[in-house]
Amino acid sequence: MLKLIIGNKNYSSWSLRPWLLLKQAQIPFEEVLIPLYEAGSRERTLAYSPTGKVPCLIDGDIVVWDSLAISEYLAECFPERQLWPAAMADRAEARAIAAEMHAGFTYLRGQMPMNLRRERPRLSKAPEVEQDIARIISIWSALRQRHAGAGDFLFGSFSVADAMYAPVVTRFKSYDVKLPALAQQYADTVLALPAMQEWYAAGRAESWRIAVSELDD
Amino acid sequence: MLKLIIGNKNYSSWSLRPWLLLKQAQIPFEEVLIPLYEAGSRERTLAYSPTGKVPCLIDGDIVVWDSLAISEYLAECFPERQLWPAAMADRAEARAIAAEMHAGFTYLRGQMPMNLRRERPRLSKAPEVEQDIARIISIWSALRQRHAGAGDFLFGSFSVADAMYAPVVTRFKSYDVKLPALAQQYADTVLALPAMQEWYAAGRAESWRIAVSELDD
Ligand SMILES: N[C@@H](CCC(=O)N[C@@H](CS)C(=O)NCC(=O)O)C(=O)O
Ligand SMILES: N[C@@H](CCC(=O)N[C@@H](CS)C(=O)NCC(=O)O)C(=O)O
Repeated sequence: MLKLIIGNKNYSSWSLRPWLLLKQAQIPFEEVLIPLYEAGSRERTLAYSPTGKVPCLIDGDIVVWDSLAISEYLAECFPERQLWPAAMADRAEARAIAAEMHAGFTYLRGQMPMNLRRERPRLSKAPEVEQDIARIISIWSALRQRHAGAGDFLFGSFSVADAMYAPVVTRFKSYDVKLPALAQQYADTVLALPAMQEWYAAGRAESWRIAVSELDD
Repeated sequence: MLKLIIGNKNYSSWSLRPWLLLKQAQIPFEEVLIPLYEAGSRERTLAYSPTGKVPCLIDGDIVVWDSLAISEYLAECFPERQLWPAAMADRAEARAIAAEMHAGFTYLRGQMPMNLRRERPRLSKAPEVEQDIARIISIWSALRQRHAGAGDFLFGSFSVADAMYAPVVTRFKSYDVKLPALAQQYADTVLALPAMQEWYAAGRAESWRIAVSELDD
């Protein structure tokens, strides 16, 4: 059975991505949760992942670290689940926005760390954060408009692209970011997924606390 | 014909990656070079790429921005060129180290920006930079040892993984980083590629200057 190594559900945005992808695709897996920034955490993650970071997927002898590499690996192993959009042009665009998330939006990530328990407007009004938010809204809105007839997700059916942006959906909720109607509808759709609710409930119930992710307490 | 939008060859590390991949795979393409951080650069890149960043690949109606998304797109369009390693386990590992480069090594990237014209030891001896260097050496050394019989690149034949690390090879040269024998041999192999020499010659001959990439002048 596949084994997915993840961090705290309340905080670990990178872990949520492949976890949600696996759940949505109904691929069975065993979950190993290592609370981060606790004594011994790094040693425990290094026992699985050569970077000492999560997420990390173990498939027998194969170790795949990094959320995006895991997504590509799963897409190859389970072609019938269509984890990427089926049409070539859509797939190219889905990969481009997934990569944009993977390497980018550094201001948003730094100033609005994922923290499911939080429900208070953001402090930083830096223009770079506004730009990140505006770019994400424009991506979501354009795709939802274009694929409205095909389903409720960015490319119609749920894909890796939705998994990559799922932690942003939680950030917009936690930091009370006002969205235009189409983007809000999309965010609500993601939040309502049973798998997201399961992750939320578990994350909120955790007692670990990561100080750097609690910006203004 | 494919069109690849790139930045200055002396400085644009992300541009080098898909450019080298296309050259190594002998896939014909037209190159559009936009010097970055000049008046009007941003408008010129935005005319192609929604992020305003390079590289960006144009294939008819299809626009693919981001080096890693471009690599996946090309791998799908040209399956016979085997841009990723053929064996599943190797491919998973190649994607993991490509993703690690794509989202990581931020200290190395910040403290040792690509600058082909530079030939002077690095200034920063921050432990985070040392850690990035050590991790890259360990990746290269382990892979070269494992695939020694299969060819001269990380997974034997040239793959996306080599393209992703090619700018690091130039950094180690520019900043005079001492490497163990196996890693140095790999770096020399990459530097000796005719396509790399072509890129170097063009980059060094450019007259544009990006101040933030000239750390200690
Ligand atoms: N690019 C990686 C990022 C992974 C990452 O930064 N994970 C964080 C948790 S969300 C982590 O492991 N932090 C602990 C540490 O860096 O020691 C991915 O996409 O998986
Ligand atoms: N994650 C992107 C990074 C692209 C990137 O940062 N490109 C730089 C040049 S190497 C750029 O366009 N900088 C100009 C700008 O940000 O305005 C990729 O992999 O392609």
